[in-house]
Amino acid sequence: MEAHVDPAEVLLTLFLAFAGAKVLAEVLERLGGPAVVGELAAGIVLGPSVLGWLEAEEFLLLLGEVGVIVLLFHVGLETHVSELRAVGGAAAAVAVLGVVLPFGMGYGVGAATGHTGIESAFVAAALVATSVGITAKVLADIGKLATRESRIVLGAAVIDDILGLLVLAVVVGLSGPGLDGGEIAVLLVEAFAFVGVLLIVAPRLMDRLSHLLEAPRIPRAPFAIAIVLLLGLSVVASRIELAAIVGAFLAGVTLAGTRDRYRLEHQIQPVADFLTPFFFVATGAQVDIDSFLEPGILGFAALITVVAIVGKLGGGMLGARGLGRRSALIVGVGMVPRGEVGIIVATLALSRGAIEADLFGAVLAMVVVTTLAAPPVLTALFAARDRARAAAGEPGPPPPAGPPPDDAGGVG
Amino acid sequence: MEAHVDPAEVLLTLFLAFAGAKVLAEVLERLGGPAVVGELAAGIVLGPSVLGWLEAEEFLLLLGEVGVIVLLFHVGLETHVSELRAVGGAAAAVAVLGVVLPFGMGYGVGAATGHTGIESAFVAAALVATSVGITAKVLADIGKLATRESRIVLGAAVIDDILGLLVLAVVVGLSGPGLDGGEIAVLLVEAFAFVGVLLIVAPRLMDRLSHLLEAPRIPRAPFAIAIVLLLGLSVVASRIELAAIVGAFLAGVTLAGTRDRYRLEHQIQPVADFLTPFFFVATGAQVDIDSFLEPGILGFAALITVVAIVGKLGGGMLGARGLGRRSALIVGVGMVPRGEVGIIVATLALSRGAIEADLFGAVLAMVVVTTLAAPPVLTALFAARDRARAAAGEPGPPPPAGPPPDDAGGVG
Repeated sequence: MEAHVDPAEVLLTLFLAFAGAKVLAEVLERLGGPAVVGELAAGIVLGPSVLGWLEAEEFLLLLGEVGVIVLLFHVGLETHVSELRAVGGAAAAVAVLGVVLPFGMGYGVGAATGHTGIESAFVAAALVATSVGITAKVLADIGKLATRESRIVLGAAVIDDILGLLVLAVVVGLSGPGLDGGEIAVLLVEAFAFVGVLLIVAPRLMDRLSHLLEAPRIPRAPFAIAIVLLLGLSVVASRIELAAIVGAFLAGVTLAGTRDRYRLEHQIQPVADFLTPFFFVATGAQVDIDSFLEPGILGFAALITVVAIVGKLGGGMLGARGLGRRSALIVGVGMVPRGEVGIIVATLALSRGAIEADLFGAVLAMVVVTTLAAPPVLTALFAARDRARAAAGEPGPPPPAGPPPDDAGGVG
Repeated sequence: MEAHVDPAEVLLTLFLAFAGAKVLAEVLERLGGPAVVGELAAGIVLGPSVLGWLEAEEFLLLLGEVGVIVLLFHVGLETHVSELRAVGGAAAAVAVLGVVLPFGMGYGVGAATGHTGIESAFVAAALVATSVGITAKVLADIGKLATRESRIVLGAAVIDDILGLLVLAVVVGLSGPGLDGGEIAVLLVEAFAFVGVLLIVAPRLMDRLSHLLEAPRIPRAPFAIAIVLLLGLSVVASRIELAAIVGAFLAGVTLAGTRDRYRLEHQIQPVADFLTPFFFVATGAQVDIDSFLEPGILGFAALITVVAIVGKLGGGMLGARGLGRRSALIVGVGMVPRGEVGIIVATLALSRGAIEADLFGAVLAMVVVTTLAAPPVLTALFAARDRARAAAGEPGPPPPAGPPPDDAGGVG
């Protein structure tokens, strides 16, 4: 064994992370809050900031990365491509406005508070990318993945990621030796080609090739092929500088049109249940409370947090205004969490010497607040909408095409 | 993100490992061989010995470790404790003889070929511990987990592990600063207490506490509790120097008596399907063909490989002779694979300076041969037994208590 880490220690970390996530998720459930906040809180409590029982170790982060990929694959399986295309216009508007507003406002706030152009540009870039994993988990937990609002958020997150790629590539290019214009153009062409092929060509092919999933003789061949597609498209997405979860989501969408869809959903669900808590705990464990509680940072942190929330909320509400005020608000809130993506951008900026520890701390605070605040608001907004509809005697939303994503309909 | 490894590289490794495992498993299926040999072969082919596309990296090894734990948990779920107790006597005989014979013969061969006492003792210790993961996967793949022979092998593997712990503790103690007699005694008491509590006390408690699995409000609570138990007992087992898979197996046995058993089996199956290929590929990728192809090693390697096979085969056949020749042979072959356990012992000995690279290479060769040879023989023996029974007009084995472990009955 070449392992440098004691497997027994790794198992202990996994035990603490999983058990802690589930205990605090149960506490949140009983308080009426979203379970995912409990799992994030478990990471903060178990992590270096409070108890120090575990760290955001490499293995936990990588296992969490696999977990969020499986989660977005599962979400993709519940999203037929025609449903995604039907909301394409609104999703594009939400994505574009949700990138332009936070970036512009973030850059303005940075410049107005005396930061350099590069510093302001990196902080602004950290405000751009939505972390759709958090929102997807909340929507799945409360059984709202099949709503129009959820589809707009999911579609917007894919477009958002392409735009975020563009923004980050330009900012990195400006900050020193980075990508030149030609390289950025190539990445963008690759990104559009990748998404285009998967949303336009692949679904038609799958209709005809569906039976190939059952051609191999190994047991449970469709599941094995689905995992190969999931991992393969995640690799391609990350190779062309898109988030791996975009590839995973599109792998799910591709298979959502096959006749094995429901069986795959039931099989992927427990894999996601097993692995995603590690993602949320690892995300929580990366929060270093001390690093952003210093007085000098708090003011700027509060400022960019407001910009982060107002920017995405405004972008979402403007982009989805055709759906009515309440639904547009749901879309806006769904776009708010920044999660690990903001941390990745800030880490990149820090490692290139483009920002100092104080701005890094401010970005972290923004990530923590947007990530923890959005889930309860989202849950409450859906509950309020359902109550308003019931009171008005309107029919509820159409039932999802498949079995409901909650416990009742699944195998589990 | 504190990850030192590029997540995109990790995803590529996982893709290659999973896709390679499934492609070669399919090839083996079509050739009529056991799929697990294809997955092991994928590791050898993709690993440093042949293509060099992936290494037995830490992440792959740890993910594989989690995979084999989930696999043994799944096997445990299909094993009711009363079925295990019913074969207790035979299992104990198989385990004791399967430890004494290989150790005695291994030590004798070492001493007779001019090796020191410590060298001979470490080589002999590497011959002792059965790697039940390989056998369990073969039995699950061919749908034979519910046979009496399989239960004897599984029960013997648990006892084997306790005896292996004793042997290794004594050998390590003899080789220099290690455990003293008192510490060895404490470990043994802990091991017996752990297994005793789980096989005698826990099943009775579970009958009464079964409903608690559904008490929490989080979605799919029984699954979450099962994972907590799985990880928790794996941690405890590894803390008292037993293999983590023994804890995982006993966690499964504990839950096999609950009313959630079948649902848990269906939920755990895809998790095992997703993770176990990484175990077999990582095991295969650790094989360094060059290291044991040197002429000086081959002779000794052949000698201890014969001892490894004859010792376990003899122990299994003698211990299970009451079942008839054919069944006793199946039990014996089921105990033959050494897998990663032999490698761990040899690595420990190498790191303590107790053996040199040549003996390490010989142990590796023994592990490779026993691991690759046992699955096809096991599959062929079961097929031959079924044919003989059919020809004699005997009824087949009683159907397993649950849905059959193959594709037809599961969700998948």
